[in-house]
Amino acid sequence: MNKQAFQNLYPEELSHCFGCGKNNAEGHQLKSFWQHIDKENILDSTTVAHYQPDEKYTAMPGFVYGGMIASLIDCHGTGSAAAMAYLAQNREMGSLPALRFVTGALNVSYLAPTPQGVELELIGRFSELKERKIIVDISLSANDVICAKGQVIAVLMPKSMLNN
Amino acid sequence: MNKQAFQNLYPEELSHCFGCGKNNAEGHQLKSFWQHIDKENILDSTTVAHYQPDEKYTAMPGFVYGGMIASLIDCHGTGSAAAMAYLAQNREMGSLPALRFVTGALNVSYLAPTPQGVELELIGRFSELKERKIIVDISLSANDVICAKGQVIAVLMPKSMLNN
Repeated sequence: MNKQAFQNLYPEELSHCFGCGKNNAEGHQLKSFWQHIDKENILDSTTVAHYQPDEKYTAMPGFVYGGMIASLIDCHGTGSAAAMAYLAQNREMGSLPALRFVTGALNVSYLAPTPQGVELELIGRFSELKERKIIVDISLSANDVICAKGQVIAVLMPKSMLNN
Repeated sequence: MNKQAFQNLYPEELSHCFGCGKNNAEGHQLKSFWQHIDKENILDSTTVAHYQPDEKYTAMPGFVYGGMIASLIDCHGTGSAAAMAYLAQNREMGSLPALRFVTGALNVSYLAPTPQGVELELIGRFSELKERKIIVDISLSANDVICAKGQVIAVLMPKSMLNN
């Protein structure tokens, strides 16, 4: 099992994302990992990330703002999708040609206020796997209570995003 | 027509949101306004906000990251919902008791990469209005091209968020 963070294996030129790029010094630098890999049925594999937002990312005093929660779910989703694409092709993550996913759609349900000052846990599960489209369902919990659920419809990065 | 930003009329103690709170010096401080108010059919009223994200909020070089887009849609949605709630009750925005909305669910479809270095425009429309639940549909455009569409299901703030 690869214990490197998915985001550390993105191509250098695609590692600037504010949410998760290792080359964005001011960003969140979210790190996602396999929680477990199910070789028998890869869709049953799960991913995990932990993150404690800075106090400035407040909604109301004491609670994390919704944009941060959406951002964490988004980046954990696209990272999990890339990892799954490599797994499905039985390729080492990071090998070329790169498989990098972007968000086609992001849906977040806020179930409970997310407390600040606590490490948040994101768990990713997979509900659809196609070559160019992977759906990741994500729960975000604090102190073992699920505060938000999200779904990321991740699509293989279009070439148009490489033109700049 | 009130030309003050909705977010400037939030109660002081509820103005810390990283996305739109005037009391969060490090945050985005999004400002939303009525674009037009339709007194005959208030649901046909629309809201508008303009925002140019800092260069650090990148996805791939040249494009705005998805978490920022989700955050702008989220805050424009809850702001628009609060303004609509006051309008529906024929009350001056900011008058007490405060009507402050939080996000129950946020859905974003990313239609095209959002370019950096451009002022983004968010337009809010209303598709449902109840006392405790308002649905706002939002388009986000750059250079007159819609880059993302979102829906915010906004709910009247629960008292539990005031206890901290």
